[in-house]
Amino acid sequence: MFTLIEDGTVTSPSGFRAGVAAAGIKYQGRLDLGVIASDRPGPIAGVFTRNVVRSAPVVACQRRLNSGVGQAVIVNSGCANACTGPRGAHDAEQMARLAASRLGISPEMVYVAGTGVIGTFVPLDRVAAGLSKMALESSGGHDFARAIMTTDTRAKELALAVTAPAGCFTIGAAAKGSGMIHPDMGTMLCFITTDASVDGRFLQAALGRVTDRTFNMVSVDGDTSPSDTVLLLANACSGHPTIGADGGQEFEEALLEVCTRLAMSIAADGEGATKLFEVIVTGAASESDARRAARCVAGSSLVKTAIHGADPNWGRLVCAVGRSGAAMDPDRVSLSLNDVPVMSRGMPAPFDEAALRRSLEADHVRAHIDLHIGPTSATAWGCDLSHEYVTINASYTT
Amino acid sequence: MFTLIEDGTVTSPSGFRAGVAAAGIKYQGRLDLGVIASDRPGPIAGVFTRNVVRSAPVVACQRRLNSGVGQAVIVNSGCANACTGPRGAHDAEQMARLAASRLGISPEMVYVAGTGVIGTFVPLDRVAAGLSKMALESSGGHDFARAIMTTDTRAKELALAVTAPAGCFTIGAAAKGSGMIHPDMGTMLCFITTDASVDGRFLQAALGRVTDRTFNMVSVDGDTSPSDTVLLLANACSGHPTIGADGGQEFEEALLEVCTRLAMSIAADGEGATKLFEVIVTGAASESDARRAARCVAGSSLVKTAIHGADPNWGRLVCAVGRSGAAMDPDRVSLSLNDVPVMSRGMPAPFDEAALRRSLEADHVRAHIDLHIGPTSATAWGCDLSHEYVTINASYTT
Repeated sequence: MFTLIEDGTVTSPSGFRAGVAAAGIKYQGRLDLGVIASDRPGPIAGVFTRNVVRSAPVVACQRRLNSGVGQAVIVNSGCANACTGPRGAHDAEQMARLAASRLGISPEMVYVAGTGVIGTFVPLDRVAAGLSKMALESSGGHDFARAIMTTDTRAKELALAVTAPAGCFTIGAAAKGSGMIHPDMGTMLCFITTDASVDGRFLQAALGRVTDRTFNMVSVDGDTSPSDTVLLLANACSGHPTIGADGGQEFEEALLEVCTRLAMSIAADGEGATKLFEVIVTGAASESDARRAARCVAGSSLVKTAIHGADPNWGRLVCAVGRSGAAMDPDRVSLSLNDVPVMSRGMPAPFDEAALRRSLEADHVRAHIDLHIGPTSATAWGCDLSHEYVTINASYTT
Repeated sequence: MFTLIEDGTVTSPSGFRAGVAAAGIKYQGRLDLGVIASDRPGPIAGVFTRNVVRSAPVVACQRRLNSGVGQAVIVNSGCANACTGPRGAHDAEQMARLAASRLGISPEMVYVAGTGVIGTFVPLDRVAAGLSKMALESSGGHDFARAIMTTDTRAKELALAVTAPAGCFTIGAAAKGSGMIHPDMGTMLCFITTDASVDGRFLQAALGRVTDRTFNMVSVDGDTSPSDTVLLLANACSGHPTIGADGGQEFEEALLEVCTRLAMSIAADGEGATKLFEVIVTGAASESDARRAARCVAGSSLVKTAIHGADPNWGRLVCAVGRSGAAMDPDRVSLSLNDVPVMSRGMPAPFDEAALRRSLEADHVRAHIDLHIGPTSATAWGCDLSHEYVTINASYTT
């Protein structure tokens, strides 16, 4: 059982503080450096980009994750520190060292993340200056969520109060998304904190399962970044008996709720997005088929432009399923848009076009595709493809 | 040896005629129905969409292709006749019958193609009326190339005069492209004619190989259509000894030239395109890796918007390779844009940004990615992603 905490943040769980700075990493006068620190070390779980090109911070996190323990995270927005060779690897370690020295803990306890332009180096002197003036506070969550934004238009954060048989605890989170978002986590960062006491191995397994159903079902533009990172820190400050595979159900359900809400807000706030596009595939032969079909429809440029124009051009959705690799029989497929059937068992279904167009103007459009060949389903989230997406991305480095 | 024929068309080869009509299939007063007919039947080869959702015309062609013989093609632009169930299948057969009756040949000799909105039915009465007033002429090639256009801004056609040991012959072709173009042939139609005498089995094999290196390396938006069709008719009117696996080299080289030119013009005339984007991958471990990497870069929305904005944001290209599935070592990759090195063996290379921006304003942008791990290479063609693409596709059915 869980309830949403009003104005909840990544520092809502006990024992977490956050600090931010406008360090001038890419722009002047904009929050671009953030730190989350726990009062004590604890188990940490991580999920990262599947792109072969990994940023130096991702490599640094993956190495640290072998220990399964962590206490803090330092994040910059402005520089991805990717495609930067040995100097980039050194810089990522140096960022951890600078934060560790500020916090008085070991550099191995500090995880690193970054987002921004690829192929540029982190200005370490500015990071150091930013850290020196940074105050870490238990009320720092809101600022942290703002400090990790790049082309995001809204901060993405929440916290849940959870009541489980093991005891009561809190989960908080902050995320950024916007461009280069795709299944397998294009440029997104998400930092989740909890004061629950959770077994480390279960923590990692639960985060993997939940990420597959949430962040890995989000597509903004089909591109993936070398920087994508989800980190979950559990500091056990709530003092209840340790949650593991047994008794973990409530924890995982609450984590799923946190990540689902963040995944939906990342999709809705995709670069240039004017609406959230939710794609539900049912009746698939296998879960991987359902996921593949849902993601392919949510990611199709032709579908996304049609959704942008509130154009009920449903053939494009069916064709996206057809090229997804999912098993399908075109003569069995049924499809509805915002609950209006437009295709029934492979044939066009008559519908009131003017009414459907009006309905597609809403800021949340839902497609339901029933393949009618199996028992499994999946949901993917995307957004429309707008002129604004082109404008943003035609001049990103300028 | 081959030379380009000035003003060459699909009716340049001997024994081919073409006719067109403004049948009012989707719009009034616009050429939207075309027929190509050979004076005599001959071997025919075909390559079709790999989308599981196939249009009724594609299904009709594939069934006919079992015989390997054909004499004519009827094409409409305006209605894809896809997702139309048994009635659509009947309509496609009926189109073949109407054309066959007009030409005085068997319906089994007539192949069918269509492009346009999915989920609508072909107005057979208008097709019949269009056919009744249609004149078939050996000078009809130019009009045919115009009649198959949808959102294309330019007709795509050419012919080559070929001198081979077996004798002299001509290859002509007309194609349409524009949207929904992707590896595996998104909404593209291409009709190739030749008066060469060619063994049927060799004809099909050569067309398959050439299509893989040309049309299947074009991406406009990552979407594929249910209608994609390449048909190659060989009527043997040039009277030389039959070309087969032996002696087919000149034929296949000329066919490759025809299809490469058409593939490049399809990419350059992609929906909303302002420039041709050519991606050359070398040093790949295998041919499939080279193809996969080149196609993924050419199809990336983030890369395409950067190219649109003449923004040398090269990290996006490397990341597209990184998610392509091709084997790569990020520390070995070198990358140049319009011959300017921007990344060298995994590290940023210094370049004159202002000069490179000016160079990227050209209407042909070339990226060369050397993976430095193997001997194979591939080339893909795409275009930039512009505001105009969004405008076109946000209101396609209106």
